[in-house]
Amino acid sequence: MAPTLNVKEATGNQSSWDTLLPDFPKGPLCKYRKKASFNWKEMAVFLDGEDIIRLKNRIFSALESDPLFARNPGEELSREKYQELTFLRCKRLFEYDFLTQQEIIENPLKILNMVISIGMYDWSPCLQFFLHCGVFAGTILSASKRFADFVKKVYNMEIFGCFALTELSHGTNTKGIRTTATFDHDTQEFIINSPDFEAAKFWVGNMGKHATHAVVYAQLYTPDGQCQGLHSFIVQGFCFVSVYSGSCSTPKIIHYFSAHQFAMFHNVRIPKENILNVTGDVSPEGKYSSSFKDVKERFSAALGSLSTGRILITAVSATNLKLALSIAIRFSATRHQFGPTDEEEIPVIEYQTQVDLGREIHALSAASKPLSSWTAQQAAQECREACGGHGYLAMNRLGEIRNDNDPNCTYEGDNNVLLQQTSNYLMSWMNCIRDKVPFESPLGTVNFLQDYHRIIGWKFKANSVDDCMDSSVPLAAYKWLVCYLLRESDLKLRKEKQSGQSDFEAKNNCQVYYCRSLAIAFIEQTVLQRYHDYTHDPNIPSTLQPVLKNLNALYGLWSLSKHLAVLYQGGYVSGEAGRFIQNAILELCRRLKDDAVALVDVFAPPDFILNSPIGKASGEGGIGFLRLFCYLYKFLLKECLPASEELRIPFQSKTMDKLQSQKHRPGGAQFSRTVEKLPSPSEEG
Amino acid sequence: MAPTLNVKEATGNQSSWDTLLPDFPKGPLCKYRKKASFNWKEMAVFLDGEDIIRLKNRIFSALESDPLFARNPGEELSREKYQELTFLRCKRLFEYDFLTQQEIIENPLKILNMVISIGMYDWSPCLQFFLHCGVFAGTILSASKRFADFVKKVYNMEIFGCFALTELSHGTNTKGIRTTATFDHDTQEFIINSPDFEAAKFWVGNMGKHATHAVVYAQLYTPDGQCQGLHSFIVQGFCFVSVYSGSCSTPKIIHYFSAHQFAMFHNVRIPKENILNVTGDVSPEGKYSSSFKDVKERFSAALGSLSTGRILITAVSATNLKLALSIAIRFSATRHQFGPTDEEEIPVIEYQTQVDLGREIHALSAASKPLSSWTAQQAAQECREACGGHGYLAMNRLGEIRNDNDPNCTYEGDNNVLLQQTSNYLMSWMNCIRDKVPFESPLGTVNFLQDYHRIIGWKFKANSVDDCMDSSVPLAAYKWLVCYLLRESDLKLRKEKQSGQSDFEAKNNCQVYYCRSLAIAFIEQTVLQRYHDYTHDPNIPSTLQPVLKNLNALYGLWSLSKHLAVLYQGGYVSGEAGRFIQNAILELCRRLKDDAVALVDVFAPPDFILNSPIGKASGEGGIGFLRLFCYLYKFLLKECLPASEELRIPFQSKTMDKLQSQKHRPGGAQFSRTVEKLPSPSEEG
Repeated sequence: MAPTLNVKEATGNQSSWDTLLPDFPKGPLCKYRKKASFNWKEMAVFLDGEDIIRLKNRIFSALESDPLFARNPGEELSREKYQELTFLRCKRLFEYDFLTQQEIIENPLKILNMVISIGMYDWSPCLQFFLHCGVFAGTILSASKRFADFVKKVYNMEIFGCFALTELSHGTNTKGIRTTATFDHDTQEFIINSPDFEAAKFWVGNMGKHATHAVVYAQLYTPDGQCQGLHSFIVQGFCFVSVYSGSCSTPKIIHYFSAHQFAMFHNVRIPKENILNVTGDVSPEGKYSSSFKDVKERFSAALGSLSTGRILITAVSATNLKLALSIAIRFSATRHQFGPTDEEEIPVIEYQTQVDLGREIHALSAASKPLSSWTAQQAAQECREACGGHGYLAMNRLGEIRNDNDPNCTYEGDNNVLLQQTSNYLMSWMNCIRDKVPFESPLGTVNFLQDYHRIIGWKFKANSVDDCMDSSVPLAAYKWLVCYLLRESDLKLRKEKQSGQSDFEAKNNCQVYYCRSLAIAFIEQTVLQRYHDYTHDPNIPSTLQPVLKNLNALYGLWSLSKHLAVLYQGGYVSGEAGRFIQNAILELCRRLKDDAVALVDVFAPPDFILNSPIGKASGEGGIGFLRLFCYLYKFLLKECLPASEELRIPFQSKTMDKLQSQKHRPGGAQFSRTVEKLPSPSEEG
Repeated sequence: MAPTLNVKEATGNQSSWDTLLPDFPKGPLCKYRKKASFNWKEMAVFLDGEDIIRLKNRIFSALESDPLFARNPGEELSREKYQELTFLRCKRLFEYDFLTQQEIIENPLKILNMVISIGMYDWSPCLQFFLHCGVFAGTILSASKRFADFVKKVYNMEIFGCFALTELSHGTNTKGIRTTATFDHDTQEFIINSPDFEAAKFWVGNMGKHATHAVVYAQLYTPDGQCQGLHSFIVQGFCFVSVYSGSCSTPKIIHYFSAHQFAMFHNVRIPKENILNVTGDVSPEGKYSSSFKDVKERFSAALGSLSTGRILITAVSATNLKLALSIAIRFSATRHQFGPTDEEEIPVIEYQTQVDLGREIHALSAASKPLSSWTAQQAAQECREACGGHGYLAMNRLGEIRNDNDPNCTYEGDNNVLLQQTSNYLMSWMNCIRDKVPFESPLGTVNFLQDYHRIIGWKFKANSVDDCMDSSVPLAAYKWLVCYLLRESDLKLRKEKQSGQSDFEAKNNCQVYYCRSLAIAFIEQTVLQRYHDYTHDPNIPSTLQPVLKNLNALYGLWSLSKHLAVLYQGGYVSGEAGRFIQNAILELCRRLKDDAVALVDVFAPPDFILNSPIGKASGEGGIGFLRLFCYLYKFLLKECLPASEELRIPFQSKTMDKLQSQKHRPGGAQFSRTVEKLPSPSEEG
């Protein structure tokens, strides 16, 4: 593990924190905040740094004061209208120019923070923005400097870009892509062609109505008839057909996919210079050249930018988790007892593409995306259930968060398929391990496997609940678990091959319970290692360290508890060890209970952004929402009801005034005192 | 276990099956159907019986040929419009009168089959129908005969009823209900009153705009000031206020909840005879009388009808599971390899309410609802993911199924709270067990606990994968598991109490890993026992028994595998046993792979009802859906596109004709051959 922990020095004091992070409005949550073992503002400043908090504040308040971003509770926009609004919002984001080039260079993590701050408001304009200037422009930027002018136009949105990689019948299997780009020596052009509908580009991010250009992935053919592998090209001049039923989604399930359509190319000609020469280029004579010596490396490099997408999804999922927890924990704290779920902060790694490093980043992002998207998906569902009926009130947003998060499990590579790539990467070290050849990976995440022969002999040492309370306990268990699953997967694969299965069949038969578990255990171990190193850093303020360590231990034990059967099966634990772990989890939940509201305060966005009545910072959510009923009710009484004396009786102004003076007691639909005399609707008929 | 298995004799032959169940249209799925080890029609007739299949056919074809139930793909209805349509559909269902009184008396299960057949089309009109004539009328019917005339009006929908039990701050905790019904001796009336807004009735099923009457639960007070506990009353004359934001849901998350509103009562007077005298009555003098000797029993009886709701939800969840599987398995079979998930058929038990039996039914339904709603929720999500991007296309319905299923986890009692009631019931037998007093429950589901002292000493006997292939293996493990968790929960509870915790605190601290696991293990054991007895019945046709036994073993082992850590921890298994179980699961999946499509054929409704292009019976789903694109595209070309020559070039009729002649190759948005000359949208704009 590279020692690149980014522990910020705790800066400032109470008064500087107060300037950055004003107090929340007083309300029912006050008493829970007082119980917290730490100061949430100190924690927020420590985790994010003052600079990032200022950036977030800038973004949140810009959106809140901009009429284009006004929240209109209860409004149901048509798909069409919503897409239009989303595009306008995306354009406006460019006008805001929240970050200067200088700021980005000084701290590239600010881009990520900007993206997730906007996403907390609504993922649709955010992802449109990111697909345009991150994925589309990013892919172009990674090619040569000859696209500099083009990129300028991208940033002022003269050009609006989309990203066409996936084909209808070739989703995650990017090697199977069948769109071709044939170089025509005579006209110095590439001819882009879709051989059939199954090779149509699907899920074209951002295409919608507004795209003017696309980055298109295709197999490059040189005039000698040779296929040079996957390359990307800029294709301009989009002819969009708005086929309603042809759009890849309707707002019913997810909004931000609604701008995704499909596209086909019928021998579309583009100038030679439109090749994005990341991995190779073609000379005017039609000769191919590449700085990569073999096809496999070239392929990895061509798709290097995909890791960015997966890393972003990791962050998006973690953000969805934060939103869901902010709502559920605040609501629960004002309603009834609750057991905190834990929150996970996935470190995001950004590096230049380079093959060895690229492979490791690929292996990490291919597992961190499944881990975070599934965790967020399950946690959003649990948060929804924890809030009971109020949880599925659309206005409280938990259902929306779960539904918005769902595609993260599939796009940029199906989770299960991605996990295979991580396990392939891990299995590729098996020869070095067997032969005891020393090895290192650029980020160091697999270096511990050099100790494989020692680790595989480890046993669980804790003899009591108290022994389990530090994250070093689950961390050691995870190291053993990865080694054990590596051995088992390797054995299983060799057995399958020996029994005469083809390579493909053999690998396929090793996924469930073996390779898949291996990849998951590995990424959990990696996350836990970083988390552990972070919380045990001596620079962490002593005021914050206890709660961070408790969270860390809880995360480790809770994750580990899902692998308990394997720990028993492999002999790492025996007897009552499982009970110690379970009881330690319960004890940590108990210890963290009083900190839960304050922990949520650390990452929850402002009420306007969170946009969930039951998740309001004051804790008056439920009550505010009831008060809204009351006003609407009074309005309706005046405006809409028939002027029948009988109907008015129970709604005398005295009653209503009394209701309004009591925060908890607005009226809704009411039974009249004289209802027996009223005609039933069917009689009115 | 009561020996009441309902194994139907396999009736008829191929030709009678063909009359009942016509062949599916030919298509890509044919080859998978041929691989099946059994005849799906024989299975369907065997499982449902000819009579039920005829009922289903009657319902499905009535809906399909009725314009009011026409499917309008892609249509986005406003909440308002959808509610109106739902009410009209509900009314129409009464007109159809699918079942005669005679049929219902002969086979009450037909009601359930009718409800789920309609629900497969859309849960909204179905649940409205069920809430009205099942829950509303059912509660009234269970009282005395004096409501006979009233019920007639219910069945011809002169009266439209809603059900008001839950209060804003008292959801699952029905004992905490605070609405009062005070008897006024002078006027011979009850006065219904909501003391404050927290006691407002929430989630009032079916209230919407159309309800004319409500069944209202309230604490009954006699003139002597005595509270006689919870009773139900008919309150007529609904004054509904359409507060948009006050509705408990918007269509974004779930449709059929949109007719749920809230209601308050301000000293509403109703005639004395409007008390539903199920559990007790009040004399004209104001004296209370009841046939139940204690308050607790009376309370159970008052809420007896709630078990019906939970049993229905069990069936609704199982139905959602069937829908999701029908879509996902058919799609997967035409696309790529897949591992079948298993399908679970929860037996539905219907009996008259009686206190001992009522307690057992309550304990069973309070656990079967969580089991089935969670299983369906997770499986729907897995089906969604298994279908990749196509899975979240709204038109393919998997997202809708998951979202529609979600409230099942919460209403009619939050799943976790319900599980406590099941574990309380189980723990209540602990004294008998300890004292070795013989006992029996009316349905016999806890009778095996009499063998507790013997079972707790059992060990896992299988020594190989082959040994694990029968459901008796997981069944024995489950019996041990229930006994072990019962012992552990009892020990934990006593320990908590000894350490000075209050009863409430102590119980609360025993839920996670103890009582909750106990309730889940118990219901899984109960389901597995019935499933096992059913598949091992000698009357099962030998053509169907192998596949049913395989499914049974798979269900048992797969369920059990989630408890593997506890089996190790308690010493029931050791060493490699976990591996045997996992490998047996994989082997059963392999064996069942070729039967998966035919199994889905057994329970899938017709295409019109299933309403998912990728789940079409022919397997041409994906293709049909692409063909739809093609037609729409052609239409748009003619009608909507600007008459620009450049735009027309790639869409020459020749190209389009060719596209249409090739099923797989309709066009979508396309890149023009001359795109470089086209103005970009921003230049146009």
